[in-house]
Amino acid sequence: MSRPGGRTGRIRRQVLDAVRAELVEHGYDALSVDAVATRAGVHRTTVYRRWRDVGGLLADVFDTAGDDAWQPADTGSLLGDLLALNDQILAALTERPPATMALIAASFRSEDAARALGRFWEDRYARCEPIVGRAVERGEVPPGTLARPLLICATAPLYHRLALMRLPAEPGLAAMAARTAALAASTGAFTAPEPGFTAPEPGDI
Amino acid sequence: MSRPGGRTGRIRRQVLDAVRAELVEHGYDALSVDAVATRAGVHRTTVYRRWRDVGGLLADVFDTAGDDAWQPADTGSLLGDLLALNDQILAALTERPPATMALIAASFRSEDAARALGRFWEDRYARCEPIVGRAVERGEVPPGTLARPLLICATAPLYHRLALMRLPAEPGLAAMAARTAALAASTGAFTAPEPGFTAPEPGDI
Repeated sequence: MSRPGGRTGRIRRQVLDAVRAELVEHGYDALSVDAVATRAGVHRTTVYRRWRDVGGLLADVFDTAGDDAWQPADTGSLLGDLLALNDQILAALTERPPATMALIAASFRSEDAARALGRFWEDRYARCEPIVGRAVERGEVPPGTLARPLLICATAPLYHRLALMRLPAEPGLAAMAARTAALAASTGAFTAPEPGFTAPEPGDI
Repeated sequence: MSRPGGRTGRIRRQVLDAVRAELVEHGYDALSVDAVATRAGVHRTTVYRRWRDVGGLLADVFDTAGDDAWQPADTGSLLGDLLALNDQILAALTERPPATMALIAASFRSEDAARALGRFWEDRYARCEPIVGRAVERGEVPPGTLARPLLICATAPLYHRLALMRLPAEPGLAAMAARTAALAASTGAFTAPEPGFTAPEPGDI
């Protein structure tokens, strides 16, 4: 699917804006290709042909969300970078209207949407890996520190509380999660475990 | 609602077993009071009167799940306790049929179910707090270590990967999350932050 300007790109933007607006205003149950087409002012045949169904529309919303040039902030320290990242995640999970939460909820309704959300998050975490590379270069964490578990440790508590437990953000939650991850990383918690330490066998998947 | 034996307790068990079975086999969309009543062999009027609707049924499934005597294992070390806890969470999130995942997904469909799942998790984390108390007593972590953020740090990466990103468990994920939390806790990462460290203001909610 082509992205940039021109009629194709304009139609795509109109349609995906309509998906997000319908989802936030009326929820997944009211989401339909016809409602999206009407709201977007685009012929329904066009929408069916290009996106097939609600799952295809949602998947494209996630894919478009990843079509940006987003990079994590480079604040000069691991803790600063993780604090900035968590501030952004907190803002997304508590935004009004709750577009991000509506998309997460929709991912439990559609396999296509679930896969697309997984791709989106994978891509975001991949873009965050330089945070850890910079921390290694600065000597803040040991060489061999694994980026992904460090980033998950820093961010997962926010998702756990806001997206799964559906509780309000506690003051300091984002900061404490960032601080914990940075401190743990500095003590070598995210270097590959010594052989024999963890339960899994070499052949485990 | 009374719990133990007798006709009332038996009917409740039959009905809630039917909710879980219907949910796992046919999904939330096919879940209805009538289908549950039929499967349970209970008169539909009884089900409507006691549970009102699908949300009420799901909420009671979560509430019943918390009606057990579950306690976290006491293995003699903080790391051992967290490893045992994560093994149980991993088993629940990957069980076949995927009853736990179906219940989590359903919590995105019903406010009643979401609140009941939140209560269930709150209760589980409260029961896990002695893990941290024992670690303080053994001198493994500093006095003043906060139980909840430590427990969330240890467990959230599993939920993040399996329940939100819907990715398969990586080998060692459960062990690494437990190890990270234990190591971070030993260095004082979960004691209340010094005043002025975190961004939030005293009035923040």
